[in-house]
Amino acid sequence: MAKVIKLKNTDNSFEDCINDLLNICKNDLISINATILEKIESDIPLIKKISSHIVNSGGKRLRPLLTSCAYQMCKKPNDENNRHIGLGAAVEFIHAATLLHDDVIDASKKRRGKLSANEIWGNKMSVLIGDFLFSRSFQLMSKDGSKEILQLLSNTSVQISEGEVLELNNDKDLTINENIYFDVIKNKTASLFSASCQVGGMVTEATNEKIEALKTYGLNFGMCFQLIDDAIDYSSSSYNLGKNIGDDFKEGKITLPIILAYLRSNSEEKNFWKKTIQDLNQDENDFEKALDIIKKYDCIYDTIKRSKHFANIAIDSLGAFKNNIFKDLLIKLINSSISRLR
Amino acid sequence: MAKVIKLKNTDNSFEDCINDLLNICKNDLISINATILEKIESDIPLIKKISSHIVNSGGKRLRPLLTSCAYQMCKKPNDENNRHIGLGAAVEFIHAATLLHDDVIDASKKRRGKLSANEIWGNKMSVLIGDFLFSRSFQLMSKDGSKEILQLLSNTSVQISEGEVLELNNDKDLTINENIYFDVIKNKTASLFSASCQVGGMVTEATNEKIEALKTYGLNFGMCFQLIDDAIDYSSSSYNLGKNIGDDFKEGKITLPIILAYLRSNSEEKNFWKKTIQDLNQDENDFEKALDIIKKYDCIYDTIKRSKHFANIAIDSLGAFKNNIFKDLLIKLINSSISRLR
Repeated sequence: MAKVIKLKNTDNSFEDCINDLLNICKNDLISINATILEKIESDIPLIKKISSHIVNSGGKRLRPLLTSCAYQMCKKPNDENNRHIGLGAAVEFIHAATLLHDDVIDASKKRRGKLSANEIWGNKMSVLIGDFLFSRSFQLMSKDGSKEILQLLSNTSVQISEGEVLELNNDKDLTINENIYFDVIKNKTASLFSASCQVGGMVTEATNEKIEALKTYGLNFGMCFQLIDDAIDYSSSSYNLGKNIGDDFKEGKITLPIILAYLRSNSEEKNFWKKTIQDLNQDENDFEKALDIIKKYDCIYDTIKRSKHFANIAIDSLGAFKNNIFKDLLIKLINSSISRLR
Repeated sequence: MAKVIKLKNTDNSFEDCINDLLNICKNDLISINATILEKIESDIPLIKKISSHIVNSGGKRLRPLLTSCAYQMCKKPNDENNRHIGLGAAVEFIHAATLLHDDVIDASKKRRGKLSANEIWGNKMSVLIGDFLFSRSFQLMSKDGSKEILQLLSNTSVQISEGEVLELNNDKDLTINENIYFDVIKNKTASLFSASCQVGGMVTEATNEKIEALKTYGLNFGMCFQLIDDAIDYSSSSYNLGKNIGDDFKEGKITLPIILAYLRSNSEEKNFWKKTIQDLNQDENDFEKALDIIKKYDCIYDTIKRSKHFANIAIDSLGAFKNNIFKDLLIKLINSSISRLR
């Protein structure tokens, strides 16, 4: 395996930063990828085929990368335990399972520019393969055997499904406020970022201070990351990240740009949001009109401002570690994740 | 809680037998039910509502009952550990999660005579609440903390999803033979029966001989149970078990009565099966016609014969235990499960 992960767009600084991280964690990521490939094996060829489609769909392996990085920052010089490898694969499997189920929930036809699994093999198969990958992740954790880590990751799984239910329950509801939205993204996204960081430290028996720092870093990076992701969907100038701009609008998904725009809108504009988001009654030019209102009230600017709030907390939390190359890159990762939006 | 579980039909001997088991395991089942109710709590009211709908849908708590029974048979006189309570709730949660996802896969409108969760709250919510319950089951197991038990139950979860994928993949395929069908029901049903029995013994540190006996009992009971379940769907004289007779036929589901009937059919009859099952092109009288062919070739009689094969293995496996009330009832449970079909 000459290159662990192929990234298309090399002039994107977030991707540069990920590449730098992949380089310094290269051996870990090679082992994690080998574990992932080994664990999608099944006597039933279709399981391997669909699992392979989702785990090789061009994802950045961001969560196992956080696990690896946290491990490398915390490990003692002679520590050669490889528990972070299986656990890195486990967090990636949890992530892959949620992607399969998410695409069913959102009726997504594409994922990272390719046809989604539900589009190729149908919703039913996607639900079942999600269950398979989720079970595999618990197999990997059980093999590790740490009660503390199993509790953390099973709590995280509960949190993820709670976040997803909350999000679906709020579907097209314009009365959702910023705090409810923060609850959703904390549960569905940030909790797994946080756990991915924590487990990397936990296997080294790092101090509680360091593990808490990793927890805070992951949680706040996750919040920042999801905020920017949601803002990108309303940014006409953003790079093509395999995500179709305007998808959230088309689905009537309630994210921060919409929440802020609705709260700041006059009554005529409020009616526009009710028609397009609540009733999902959209004309050809409505997305352009939505972008105009979002721009008028600085909603993208303020979404970025919120994301910087979380970014600052994440960066400060790393003060618990001495300066090192991993720490530098984790800080760069945060800053460059915001610069995805430009 | 005066009565743990309400059973409608008291003159059915399988249900009598379950009631007898519920009586001698009464305290365990009360505690397991309390744990189930405690663990469907969530900050999100809808999660509790849908979870409650599925866990209180009139199921017999057969799997936790097996866990309790196995525990009671194996425990030493002074053993007062209550680990089987949390684990009994965990196996019921795995079962409930698969029911929610199954009903989405099969587009079932009813479960045990009541509207199914997907019919009330939609497929998306059912997928997510299934994920929630599945995560909860791993939370309960993590709390128990036994690596061996976690490995068993995560392996079982992988097996269940493999069985479900295999079944969906074989959908409407008349070339499926008996062995492939056995693989499906072993994975999707019998594996959890087997694991439910095993964990009851494992928490008592019973001898390997006894744990192997429980494993064999559960696996073969599960095979026997699923075979009878599949036969009931083609039995016009069977009691109303909240299951609509003929559902499997309508869905084109490949179960043993159909597999045997197709293999034994003449070419005209084979064309009938191709039209009705493969092409799902069914007229008003086709179910009656299907029953006639199934009767002509003794397919229900032979499905029962196969189930008795597994029943005998299950009953013999209990030879590893001295005679006791639990063993007597576990044997009666097997025999009466076959007499559901009459």
